[in-house]
Amino acid sequence: MNCANAEKKNPRPLWTDAAGKTVKVIDQRLLPHEYVIAELKNLDDIIRAIKEMYVRGAPLIGATAACGVCLIAVHAPEQNAENYLKEECARLRASRPTAVNLAWAVDRMLPHLLAEKNKEKRIAAAWEEAETIIELEAENCRKIGEYGLPLIREISKKKGGKTVNLLTHCNAGWLACIEWGTATAPMYAAHMAGIDIHVWVDETRPLNQGARLTAWELGKAGIKHTVITDNAGGHLMQHGMVDMVITGTDRSTYTGDVANKIGTYLKALAAKDNNIPFYVALPSTTFDRTLRDGVREIPIEERDPDEIRFIQGYEKGSIKSVLVPPEDSPAGNYAFDVTPARLVSGFITERGICRAEEKDIRRLFPDQ
Amino acid sequence: MNCANAEKKNPRPLWTDAAGKTVKVIDQRLLPHEYVIAELKNLDDIIRAIKEMYVRGAPLIGATAACGVCLIAVHAPEQNAENYLKEECARLRASRPTAVNLAWAVDRMLPHLLAEKNKEKRIAAAWEEAETIIELEAENCRKIGEYGLPLIREISKKKGGKTVNLLTHCNAGWLACIEWGTATAPMYAAHMAGIDIHVWVDETRPLNQGARLTAWELGKAGIKHTVITDNAGGHLMQHGMVDMVITGTDRSTYTGDVANKIGTYLKALAAKDNNIPFYVALPSTTFDRTLRDGVREIPIEERDPDEIRFIQGYEKGSIKSVLVPPEDSPAGNYAFDVTPARLVSGFITERGICRAEEKDIRRLFPDQ
Repeated sequence: MNCANAEKKNPRPLWTDAAGKTVKVIDQRLLPHEYVIAELKNLDDIIRAIKEMYVRGAPLIGATAACGVCLIAVHAPEQNAENYLKEECARLRASRPTAVNLAWAVDRMLPHLLAEKNKEKRIAAAWEEAETIIELEAENCRKIGEYGLPLIREISKKKGGKTVNLLTHCNAGWLACIEWGTATAPMYAAHMAGIDIHVWVDETRPLNQGARLTAWELGKAGIKHTVITDNAGGHLMQHGMVDMVITGTDRSTYTGDVANKIGTYLKALAAKDNNIPFYVALPSTTFDRTLRDGVREIPIEERDPDEIRFIQGYEKGSIKSVLVPPEDSPAGNYAFDVTPARLVSGFITERGICRAEEKDIRRLFPDQ
Repeated sequence: MNCANAEKKNPRPLWTDAAGKTVKVIDQRLLPHEYVIAELKNLDDIIRAIKEMYVRGAPLIGATAACGVCLIAVHAPEQNAENYLKEECARLRASRPTAVNLAWAVDRMLPHLLAEKNKEKRIAAAWEEAETIIELEAENCRKIGEYGLPLIREISKKKGGKTVNLLTHCNAGWLACIEWGTATAPMYAAHMAGIDIHVWVDETRPLNQGARLTAWELGKAGIKHTVITDNAGGHLMQHGMVDMVITGTDRSTYTGDVANKIGTYLKALAAKDNNIPFYVALPSTTFDRTLRDGVREIPIEERDPDEIRFIQGYEKGSIKSVLVPPEDSPAGNYAFDVTPARLVSGFITERGICRAEEKDIRRLFPDQ
């Protein structure tokens, strides 16, 4: 595989060198203030990039994990590699708990490793499968844009062409995926179709993926947007300033429950309270078919409290990290929450739109 | 009046010098990292302190405004002062729109200024009235603690003495009032009564009054607390980790609608969705008897977007301000939202507890 960024029509957050020995990713921790490419040479690098969130977002975590499996193959012993391959894959699979694409990608890659005894052939088979996964995710997102576009067009028509105000939480853009993004795909599609849109961007504490990444993406694409605190969405919805909410998801059950960045549930409640459509955009790779009760069963990652206590930003030419609360006040860092299906208007998938309920999801995905 | 801080049993965020020429306040913008006293010598200083939020919180804004009226009297011309007094009071009254205590305090002070033609006597009358207001607010808060305590005690009993988990948004502590605070008064009372409590402190973006001020207050009082993002409360409530929410308010209607720091509405929705009591603690001075529909009628202040774009914290021995989003991304800074009465379990006031509805509020306050 050679996914060098420059060869692609659209920007991508991940690519590989021609030799298939290293994976390159945008270090998203530093955006928008510094654009740094990180080179990942082995599984430890891959795991660090996932854990410390150089890369984040369900589809991109899946794609990075697929590349990680390739690097496992690269560094495997020549002989009797089976245990090594299994153990390293298990280690990779455990690096973050909530996004289901991570486990999905590893589970899809592993049989390709085990099927091939010859090391060189195994490496080639791994890269081939990784490329398939990566191109699948890019294409999934493109289709999500295609299927989401009519929802926005409809609102635009109803408003007589006046600006359609969308709200999104966190970053489910191309930085979180491969191309187009999930939540942003319908926005990009609408913008390219000449529909007048404006996006309220939740800053998305603690790591500010909205303020840092979504605002950066939308700005680069020339899409009107305004950064707001995570607290503001309810007020805007009460006052008719939001026409539709679109978010991504890290894992959704087949019963329609949606795990996404912490705070998504609060926006869904406000949307419901104000009769505003709340859509979740996802490729089918983000569905978890094994769980039925998302609130009870989806594991919610707790991360380092210092991600809350220290806020990173730009000052006098460099990135600094400032302490906000008193030095001795503890903090609790829950990274995701689960929005129950009853609050979700629908899913936008690569096969079209469905209601957040098992029957309708299985209508679109009878084969999975 | 001489409210020198040292003479008071409990810490206060505002006091005056013995000569009645200057007002001193804690500059709350710098807490918890620097404890700086600001000296306010004239109305411009007072207005700056209110607008730029050296002082904030409905009761404290009211108290500061009362002192501001005294400084107007101090600087009034010897003769024909009436127009000067009225115009300066009007300027003070307009310095922030949402907290009703500001207008309330100015309107209560002004007649005392106008009633007295002799300048020295007028100044004395003004300080006397300001002191009455300040001591009233301190006593109101003490009583709010007294009336709120049984609510917490009840939960503690039901839980067999296990930790009672409270959640609060923003800072409605003694820093926002004169003593005790509003939302924190029942917490302080419970802690002093030996009840085991723990407080989830919403950091409260954009100005982080929760992380900076509430965490500081609770830490000083030895009350267990954990700083969380504003996004986290819904998740905690879904998982039984919150027993009760208590917030303050900047203005509440007699029909029970509650204006408070932006994001309060989202917490009220989550509390309702999870059957968790959501109480609002306020002195009767924070009721606005002129409005009936809080969502439509209470003016919501929009503040400088840079309060969102730049986050202030401590780094290497000094307070720094770091830019989070891209330099050219706009931000929108809505400072308050309104929680409809239907989401409020009750008000905790200086005369006891009532439901968030006109009939029950008028039962407690038939005279107002």
